[in-house]
Amino acid sequence: MRTASGPPRPGEIWIGDDAAVVAWPAGPLVLSTDAAVAGVHADLALVGLDDLGWKALTAAVSDIGAMGAVPVHALVTYLLAPGTDVGRLAAGVAEASARWRCPVVGGDVSVAEQVAVSVAVTGRLEGGAPAVRRAGARPGDRLFATGPLGASAAGLRLLRAGATGPAALLGAHRRPWARLAEGRTARDAGATAMIDVSDGLALDLHRLADASGVGFALTAVPVADGATVEEALGGGEDYELVLSTGDPDALAGAFAAAGLRPPVDLGRCTADPAERTLAGEALPRLGWQHPVD
Amino acid sequence: MRTASGPPRPGEIWIGDDAAVVAWPAGPLVLSTDAAVAGVHADLALVGLDDLGWKALTAAVSDIGAMGAVPVHALVTYLLAPGTDVGRLAAGVAEASARWRCPVVGGDVSVAEQVAVSVAVTGRLEGGAPAVRRAGARPGDRLFATGPLGASAAGLRLLRAGATGPAALLGAHRRPWARLAEGRTARDAGATAMIDVSDGLALDLHRLADASGVGFALTAVPVADGATVEEALGGGEDYELVLSTGDPDALAGAFAAAGLRPPVDLGRCTADPAERTLAGEALPRLGWQHPVD
Repeated sequence: MRTASGPPRPGEIWIGDDAAVVAWPAGPLVLSTDAAVAGVHADLALVGLDDLGWKALTAAVSDIGAMGAVPVHALVTYLLAPGTDVGRLAAGVAEASARWRCPVVGGDVSVAEQVAVSVAVTGRLEGGAPAVRRAGARPGDRLFATGPLGASAAGLRLLRAGATGPAALLGAHRRPWARLAEGRTARDAGATAMIDVSDGLALDLHRLADASGVGFALTAVPVADGATVEEALGGGEDYELVLSTGDPDALAGAFAAAGLRPPVDLGRCTADPAERTLAGEALPRLGWQHPVD
Repeated sequence: MRTASGPPRPGEIWIGDDAAVVAWPAGPLVLSTDAAVAGVHADLALVGLDDLGWKALTAAVSDIGAMGAVPVHALVTYLLAPGTDVGRLAAGVAEASARWRCPVVGGDVSVAEQVAVSVAVTGRLEGGAPAVRRAGARPGDRLFATGPLGASAAGLRLLRAGATGPAALLGAHRRPWARLAEGRTARDAGATAMIDVSDGLALDLHRLADASGVGFALTAVPVADGATVEEALGGGEDYELVLSTGDPDALAGAFAAAGLRPPVDLGRCTADPAERTLAGEALPRLGWQHPVD
């Protein structure tokens, strides 16, 4: 969907990336927004209102991180169905706000038929490197993920089955993590393109490749312990980052120096934008598709 | 509701005013958010989806204007019920975005049971004067409105009755106006406190008085042509600004120099915070109360 009122100014990024990057005196401003809707992004029979609040803020913060930026402020709009335990909902927002050091500085509240939380986040780019866009991957660049995938989808499967563990998988679904340090480190290490896996690797990686005008040949996909390959490919909401680089050694060195888990090699970018393969087989678009995009 | 993760930094304004004002390199950043929910903020049997979109963006922009700031960017989150004419909804957002020179630089889309639009807006303070808060009115200050009130409520009453005019009243309900030039001019002219009338004069003026620790003695309320006194006091969604000043002549001169309608004298602020009167009678809190505030 295109609702921008004009073309971005030179050097700016508007709609179409994880977050917007706009000119501001003394350096660019990074802006993202994300909503979590009860029954769409969270099944309140399985997770708490606090988890819904956590997810809304964390998803918006993750979009800032996927540009290599640092979140600074959040604005939170609550849509509250009658009888909603707003204290529990706001507690989840506050926990995420504290965890990501992104204070809630303003907000709005309305009644509604369905509980939803919409979060807007400001961010800043520390240091002089530009934001890492989805566009920017080049043929020959290596592709990496910041961690194994599918944990959130596996956690949802287990919750639906009434399981009470493993805690790592249930927690991955209830309280996803924003890879802020990884995003900043990848930007400093010269990542050429980056996206967060919010809708599933086999959808978000296609988006990165589309924006960059490249293909990809994946050799393997890292699957979280207890998750299936299908969950790793199509599950979404892992919020791990997927990125490309022409200098894998610099990336690995920077992650090691920052005390981060080593990035996981996925394969490489190719020159043919129509080539989209995993272990030599075509990799179709999977995962959560927005109703309008 | 308080969901901020800590106290504001010195000089910042967080939750509790029309918009937040936060420190940023090279000058403060002003941030607001507002949502418009179908069936709550707009009856889609009476107004169009485009009007809902217009209202959402305009309300968030108005909050920026009520600090004396200028809107710069908007982020728009759409919650779409199945079958929603998203083109018409987005067209209303785009019209408001163009009118207020506030481009939509990012957004999010989700399915939902009920149509809603949540808008976050960034703003900047041109010139060196600080933002105009709700707090700041002093005993003896004169109170002004930027125009007559009640037009939106009167327009809604007429639409419910099946009327096709007057256009000024129907338009006031469908396409409310943000008083940006008035807000900037009032700030430059030394307004001591300011709020936009989103929920009704007899609620928003109490908020200004509460924040400032003053009372008020109104002599008269300006009623829009075709509206009732009750609509002017309790109707809301007029988005006129109400402000206080210790220098009414400077205010009138600045408005005249800027080619704006003369501000309308409402009365004065008093020292007793319990004194809240209109023409000598107690003025109760009227208007739209948020479910949680």
